[in-house]
Amino acid sequence: MSTKRFHVGPRMSDMAVHSGTIYLAGQVADDISQDISGQTKQVLATIDKLLAEAGSDKTRILSTTIYITDMTNFQAMNAVWDNWVPQGNTPPRATVQAQLAKPAYLVEITVIAAA
Amino acid sequence: MSTKRFHVGPRMSDMAVHSGTIYLAGQVADDISQDISGQTKQVLATIDKLLAEAGSDKTRILSTTIYITDMTNFQAMNAVWDNWVPQGNTPPRATVQAQLAKPAYLVEITVIAAA
Amino acid sequence: MSTKRFHVGPRMSDMAVHSGTIYLAGQVADDISQDISGQTKQVLATIDKLLAEAGSDKTRILSTTIYITDMTNFQAMNAVWDNWVPQGNTPPRATVQAQLAKPAYLVEITVIAAA
Repeated sequence: MSTKRFHVGPRMSDMAVHSGTIYLAGQVADDISQDISGQTKQVLATIDKLLAEAGSDKTRILSTTIYITDMTNFQAMNAVWDNWVPQGNTPPRATVQAQLAKPAYLVEITVIAAA
Repeated sequence: MSTKRFHVGPRMSDMAVHSGTIYLAGQVADDISQDISGQTKQVLATIDKLLAEAGSDKTRILSTTIYITDMTNFQAMNAVWDNWVPQGNTPPRATVQAQLAKPAYLVEITVIAAA
Repeated sequence: MSTKRFHVGPRMSDMAVHSGTIYLAGQVADDISQDISGQTKQVLATIDKLLAEAGSDKTRILSTTIYITDMTNFQAMNAVWDNWVPQGNTPPRATVQAQLAKPAYLVEITVIAAA
């Protein structure tokens, strides 16, 4: 069974789809000058866009891991998340604190979804 | 192919099942006054309970990630884990140190399992 | 549908294959005296070996999470990664900083791949 990849770069791709399951790379904000709210909004918008490219959407997320660099941003991240996540189809989630590839990144989110 | 969700809350659900694969949210202890042994026991009991709801069990775990807030708790966590994990069907596992959503949480475990 | 496990130890197994998907345990270096370059090379060689045992290879990776203990090692890890990863089939990836089970471990990598 073949694997379809999206936005294939020299180091990683943004998404792979295999056997009805979608795997997203860890998504970070493009505009890293923004605060946790702004970065979370950007990341979730990117996730929406990627899932749409694979013919899926946020109601079909199976698992998500949220890495935030500082748990003092937990509530502000959740405020954006709670407004975005589809009621009745909220996904399993884990949130942990971790430093990310660049100090300016405040949040990184990975997603596994149904195609 | 449809996704079945369990314990669907406004922010996340505890479990999603799709195409024969079960995804659990990061599980933490209910009684956070307990030490690493007590919290690990609680988390593993919750995982048993969730997998049972999906018609699965701990012999069918495909992948698990264990987040502990302090690697000095690694041995105590493992003592509980080693007693729980089914011999002959131990799962692939990764354990890393990470701070969790509440300072009193000492361990959080995510699981992917076969339905 | 059955699950096949590889290198089943008392605490964990190194790999599980279910329904066309391969799950690897977090892989670390055997020779922990080596620096980040050496440890990354060892880990990627182990991943190659495990995937081969399951009849797969690095062109079929669906998702990978890289844990490094110090983001100052990010570039050196990437230099090894970029040389290893198959152009045209690079996988979705997330890299976060986390302390690992032993202080001498500098990198741990988990992989989900297509069988």
